[in-house]
Amino acid sequence: MAELSRRSEVPVATIKYYQREGLLPPGTPTAATRAEYGEVHLRRLRLIRALVEIGEVPVATIRQILAAVDDPSVSLHDMLGTVQYSLGPKLAEPAGDDQDRRTVDELIAELGWNVSSIAPARALLAGSLAGLRRSGAVMPAAGLRGFAEVLRPLAAQEVATLEQAAADSTDRVALSEAAVTGIVLFERVIIALRRMAQEDASAGRYAAPG
Amino acid sequence: MAELSRRSEVPVATIKYYQREGLLPPGTPTAATRAEYGEVHLRRLRLIRALVEIGEVPVATIRQILAAVDDPSVSLHDMLGTVQYSLGPKLAEPAGDDQDRRTVDELIAELGWNVSSIAPARALLAGSLAGLRRSGAVMPAAGLRGFAEVLRPLAAQEVATLEQAAADSTDRVALSEAAVTGIVLFERVIIALRRMAQEDASAGRYAAPG
Repeated sequence: MAELSRRSEVPVATIKYYQREGLLPPGTPTAATRAEYGEVHLRRLRLIRALVEIGEVPVATIRQILAAVDDPSVSLHDMLGTVQYSLGPKLAEPAGDDQDRRTVDELIAELGWNVSSIAPARALLAGSLAGLRRSGAVMPAAGLRGFAEVLRPLAAQEVATLEQAAADSTDRVALSEAAVTGIVLFERVIIALRRMAQEDASAGRYAAPG
Repeated sequence: MAELSRRSEVPVATIKYYQREGLLPPGTPTAATRAEYGEVHLRRLRLIRALVEIGEVPVATIRQILAAVDDPSVSLHDMLGTVQYSLGPKLAEPAGDDQDRRTVDELIAELGWNVSSIAPARALLAGSLAGLRRSGAVMPAAGLRGFAEVLRPLAAQEVATLEQAAADSTDRVALSEAAVTGIVLFERVIIALRRMAQEDASAGRYAAPG
């Protein structure tokens, strides 16, 4: 276990905690006080760390994700869905009213996208549109569609990239880890670029003092 | 104050808390136990609520933002910067190493963008690139530039929209409120659309069971 800790850069106490929580299987016993840990443990530990540190996913939810990863009867699509649905941002406020939900339903229908009726992104979008509406900043449907159409080919590229990052499209643990880091970190890249673009646009318009 | 509470939908106890914290000025006294609150209080309260509920900004930071809003010698650009810099996501991990920071500097120089050296978006971008690199998913510089170029005209549009939402470009309180809701909620719109696009792309590739 000291070796596993060294290779994964995860403290021994933390590894033991994951074992108590049932996230990480025991090693293969080699003596009364020793056990062997292999690549399987190392890769599983990497996935757990990505979920904890990058995804900020609670332990109970990590258990559900690992159950989907371990169950080969769960399709890769449903497994990746379990990963994506576990990732924030969560909405503190109500997820919009009927009007907002209808806007989201119509948008998805027009785009012809295959999005589950229980996808948290539906509520996130409806709630955000409701907030924009309440603050007087209406988002026109054409604007939403335009943005969606820019994002769609990037998402296809991203899903294709998952397999490169995982190096093997049937490696469910590596695919899940690549999904967590890709989804969360790339969202931050977009947010950071967007904030910089706003700053530059504001500098052009408002930088003169007074 | 009961009237202010009714019109703003903020409980009286919360309004009193903001007054104790120095965020909201007292009303104009009209009798020993009564004070008059006007539009100025209502609009300031709306800004505070947007910062608390949508921006999840702590009270000490709200105090700094209001100081910039109240000081006419702070340019609109610096005021909006104070608002934007207060909004998450914060990075839990180190903001990347020298290599990542250099990548960000070079990107901003190539784009010719006017971005302050202390902008939190720089650290957010460097840290996200570091995380992607550590997970084996390198983001090519050309990809970053391409994304930045898509986002720039949208940001210009957004900054222009601020003034419409504020109805008056010199109304610093209304501009700040529109900035908070616009920045946070529109980021959620993008994240939601992106997650749906991923789900659709994954459905096309992985939905078959097994």
